[in-house]
Amino acid sequence: MLEFSAVSSSTLETFANPRPERDYEIVISCPEFTSVCPNTGLPDFGEIRIAYTPDARCVELKSLKYYLNDFRNRGIFYEHVTNQILDDLVAALQPRRMTVVGDFSVRGGIKTVVTAEYSKAG
Amino acid sequence: MLEFSAVSSSTLETFANPRPERDYEIVISCPEFTSVCPNTGLPDFGEIRIAYTPDARCVELKSLKYYLNDFRNRGIFYEHVTNQILDDLVAALQPRRMTVVGDFSVRGGIKTVVTAEYSKAG
Amino acid sequence: MLEFSAVSSSTLETFANPRPERDYEIVISCPEFTSVCPNTGLPDFGEIRIAYTPDARCVELKSLKYYLNDFRNRGIFYEHVTNQILDDLVAALQPRRMTVVGDFSVRGGIKTVVTAEYSKAG
Amino acid sequence: MLEFSAVSSSTLETFANPRPERDYEIVISCPEFTSVCPNTGLPDFGEIRIAYTPDARCVELKSLKYYLNDFRNRGIFYEHVTNQILDDLVAALQPRRMTVVGDFSVRGGIKTVVTAEYSKAG
Amino acid sequence: MLEFSAVSSSTLETFANPRPERDYEIVISCPEFTSVCPNTGLPDFGEIRIAYTPDARCVELKSLKYYLNDFRNRGIFYEHVTNQILDDLVAALQPRRMTVVGDFSVRGGIKTVVTAEYSKAG
Amino acid sequence: MLEFSAVSSSTLETFANPRPERDYEIVISCPEFTSVCPNTGLPDFGEIRIAYTPDARCVELKSLKYYLNDFRNRGIFYEHVTNQILDDLVAALQPRRMTVVGDFSVRGGIKTVVTAEYSKAG
Amino acid sequence: MLEFSAVSSSTLETFANPRPERDYEIVISCPEFTSVCPNTGLPDFGEIRIAYTPDARCVELKSLKYYLNDFRNRGIFYEHVTNQILDDLVAALQPRRMTVVGDFSVRGGIKTVVTAEYSKAG
Amino acid sequence: MLEFSAVSSSTLETFANPRPERDYEIVISCPEFTSVCPNTGLPDFGEIRIAYTPDARCVELKSLKYYLNDFRNRGIFYEHVTNQILDDLVAALQPRRMTVVGDFSVRGGIKTVVTAEYSKAG
Amino acid sequence: MLEFSAVSSSTLETFANPRPERDYEIVISCPEFTSVCPNTGLPDFGEIRIAYTPDARCVELKSLKYYLNDFRNRGIFYEHVTNQILDDLVAALQPRRMTVVGDFSVRGGIKTVVTAEYSKAG
Amino acid sequence: MLEFSAVSSSTLETFANPRPERDYEIVISCPEFTSVCPNTGLPDFGEIRIAYTPDARCVELKSLKYYLNDFRNRGIFYEHVTNQILDDLVAALQPRRMTVVGDFSVRGGIKTVVTAEYSKAG
Repeated sequence: MLEFSAVSSSTLETFANPRPERDYEIVISCPEFTSVCPNTGLPDFGEIRIAYTPDARCVELKSLKYYLNDFRNRGIFYEHVTNQILDDLVAALQPRRMTVVGDFSVRGGIKTVVTAEYSKAG
Repeated sequence: MLEFSAVSSSTLETFANPRPERDYEIVISCPEFTSVCPNTGLPDFGEIRIAYTPDARCVELKSLKYYLNDFRNRGIFYEHVTNQILDDLVAALQPRRMTVVGDFSVRGGIKTVVTAEYSKAG
Repeated sequence: MLEFSAVSSSTLETFANPRPERDYEIVISCPEFTSVCPNTGLPDFGEIRIAYTPDARCVELKSLKYYLNDFRNRGIFYEHVTNQILDDLVAALQPRRMTVVGDFSVRGGIKTVVTAEYSKAG
Repeated sequence: MLEFSAVSSSTLETFANPRPERDYEIVISCPEFTSVCPNTGLPDFGEIRIAYTPDARCVELKSLKYYLNDFRNRGIFYEHVTNQILDDLVAALQPRRMTVVGDFSVRGGIKTVVTAEYSKAG
Repeated sequence: MLEFSAVSSSTLETFANPRPERDYEIVISCPEFTSVCPNTGLPDFGEIRIAYTPDARCVELKSLKYYLNDFRNRGIFYEHVTNQILDDLVAALQPRRMTVVGDFSVRGGIKTVVTAEYSKAG
Repeated sequence: MLEFSAVSSSTLETFANPRPERDYEIVISCPEFTSVCPNTGLPDFGEIRIAYTPDARCVELKSLKYYLNDFRNRGIFYEHVTNQILDDLVAALQPRRMTVVGDFSVRGGIKTVVTAEYSKAG
Repeated sequence: MLEFSAVSSSTLETFANPRPERDYEIVISCPEFTSVCPNTGLPDFGEIRIAYTPDARCVELKSLKYYLNDFRNRGIFYEHVTNQILDDLVAALQPRRMTVVGDFSVRGGIKTVVTAEYSKAG
Repeated sequence: MLEFSAVSSSTLETFANPRPERDYEIVISCPEFTSVCPNTGLPDFGEIRIAYTPDARCVELKSLKYYLNDFRNRGIFYEHVTNQILDDLVAALQPRRMTVVGDFSVRGGIKTVVTAEYSKAG
Repeated sequence: MLEFSAVSSSTLETFANPRPERDYEIVISCPEFTSVCPNTGLPDFGEIRIAYTPDARCVELKSLKYYLNDFRNRGIFYEHVTNQILDDLVAALQPRRMTVVGDFSVRGGIKTVVTAEYSKAG
Repeated sequence: MLEFSAVSSSTLETFANPRPERDYEIVISCPEFTSVCPNTGLPDFGEIRIAYTPDARCVELKSLKYYLNDFRNRGIFYEHVTNQILDDLVAALQPRRMTVVGDFSVRGGIKTVVTAEYSKAG
């Protein structure tokens, strides 16, 4: 059986927002997401969608890819994955607004989509 | 002819919401729903979609699957099915908000979709 | 040429709303609607969609089917069909809200959709 | 209940094939076909598709439309409709080859497509 | 090269709104629209969509078809077509509200959609 | 847990082929098929498609529907279902040719389609 | 009413096939075809698809476009259009093989597709 | 490796808005956009969508095409492209409102859409 | 970086073909396949489709799922994956015929599908 | 205006076919192809699809990508592009069979697809 690493080892890298004076939106879709079900040890598959309005920093896409790849062999539930990605990206980017959607494949004839949002206080 | 059991025998199980401090949404689609028409004894088919914002508890998906399977041989109308599922899930989860959609197959050239909502009083 | 009966002979039947204490929506699609163009005597085809929030009564689907079949050999224009169905259903059901859409096939390279709404006064 | 006329009263009209020296194909789709189920008196809906290689004559489309409209209030089964249309068109056109497809709507959760072919003897 | 007639010769005909006491919407789609580019003399193709809430009068569809056909050999730009159709229909119908969309085919790898709206004052 | 009845209790009814002198094809799709997995007791869902060239008899659709409904609470594997339906229909109809396709829903991230054919010996 | 020019005034231009030693296929789709119905004077719309294996010459696309535009105000039936385009292209290109498909829009609820083929003798 | 020209050499041309007294919207889609990734020198592909409400001037489409073609061999990031196009079009047109969407192809299994908006100050 | 296990540790299990006397086809689609690129260590994603005519044995689906999961952390090229799966299934099942398709996701703007077939000799 | 390099500077790299003893097919789709029209200097866009049965060598995908990128600023017609790619790949791979399809975007309302095939002499 697989061993689950408790933490992500990749670092989310960022670059300076080229238009910080303007509110604009970046939407990123990652249809090749996979993690492992902690109960069964079997793989889960899904798509992660991220929409955000950058403040000072934008996320660098290659580092985002490596960050998401780190979930490949981790045991984690759908609700946790989605909230964890939101937390990690908010910590790295301090965006004005962000939404993360975890859209997971059918399991046992049931499909699940989890949506979590963040908005910078006042 | 089939006998209809009057009540559901499965229990909806729940687990602790991993982020109770955040308002986020979980959408669950169950395209393999079937029950029985009380008038004709013939099977009905449809998809049940559930969207909710959890409070303290989330629904465990395997128990949800067994709960929905219990309708398989019950005689029940479309309007009743949808409201019953909403009532049972609200009772088990006490969510902040919940919508249940029953999207049923064509019968006699007519297709029916029933949508019922719940919102926790303020 | 066909003779057009001036009035509908079927009766819309209703049953008691199983959850009158809750505002919920029922959407019914009837893709097999046909009537006759009064100008040309040629058949018209279309889909009737009905969305409503029941109050005390819900419409029984088999009687709705017979009611819609009664338009089969009637000569009536698109705008009239849609408003007439809304009037008849409002009279039979006294719903809280209702929308009727008549979505008709292409004629002479032109497609027409008529939408009429009703809302119970306050 | 409706009365069913036993025979079609419209005449299929034809015009001279503009290229009788060439084997070519004409495909005609009529998505607005309706007849009546002899058992229940309820309407059936479907699409009739006709593919043929003309010999001396082509079918005139307006007369084909009136011919198909004559099934509107006739009681006739799916298998019979499709073979009858093939027989009538073969009699009127004497084509080199012809296929008629009757593609009917779902009834009782079951969809039926009937395909019949004719080829002029050698 | 083609000559462009400066004005439309067809008349938009109307009929009395059968339910003037109710606010309802009529949507008309005309996917077979063609005019001519004034710069190149080459044909343009597109779809005209009209949505309106009638007041006293509705547009008669056959006259609308002839009205739109009159653009077939006129040289006119996309922005002008859409606004002109809105102006002509508003003049003929005096509707409560109207939207006209001109959805034109790709030219030079670029697709254009023009949307213009009217609302009766006060 | 469910009990599985070992045999089907409904009878496939037939009617006389209206055109036995012509080779033609009838295709029937039944998208609302459900049976039970013998290993897990959980429901399976799928679509049964039947294509055949009738000889002396055609299958009556209502009896086919009841025949397929009899699988609802039977425990049976995909490969067996498809071959069994082919055997039963061949026995009842003695068709010239027949193909049965069992197109089943995803289970454990894997989808299965089984196709079996029969041809009357020459 | 429109006047119909009896003949096409544009010339189909060709260029030398860059690989005459190889049998290969060129498929050209022209979704913006329009002509006029000789009976009614109303416009017809459709798509012309051309597939051919060039011999010594290929058709130049701009001249093909002008050639097809010349049908814009001509009165001509579907069967004639398709065969005429095949004849004109065969005369201009002398291809090894060619198929022309005329795929026309719905008229009176009926859609027509005409397919004509040519193959160089011997 | 490619050299990147620092500035665009094409001029965005404009023409007088034919209805400056009316607020209406023009949506332009350019699915054939390509630029170069500054990091790798490899091409990027995408679709640019522009929606605006013109004030005194509209953009001339041919000059827009040439303007967008100038990005073909420039090294520029997604976020920069989208904002730059918005800035250039706002400078040339002074529109009442404008939105530019840069919808880019998958790179490394990740798809990015950038949306930037402008609104004329009140 | 990941370590690649050289061999698969799961065993493909089989069960007796319920109709060995009949030639019939089983098609299995596995859209959740993932392996690792040996050059980059980055994950590849794709769908494996298997079609076969069983002889004495059929593949048990749960063991197939575990077998395919074993590729999750193996470094292997597309061409090798597809041929390896065919070889392993042929060895386990000795089918009459089998086709394996490896349909892989876009990498660097390029999508690859590999198809390999087996047929039992004589 | 752009300068067109007469020859491609990238080299198609190959690797040893892992199963030369088996006839199997590799299909590669490259939807991000662009070249330049020699007449107008404007960019062309399209998708290149390659299907082949390898003999001793397979094409390495990264080198194929660079090879196709070399067409980016070359002036070349559709028919020439497709045949050239086939010739270059046949020279590099010596495959048993190969088909190259060039599927190009709409220009002037006309879409073109060119298909060329190669088969090793026997």
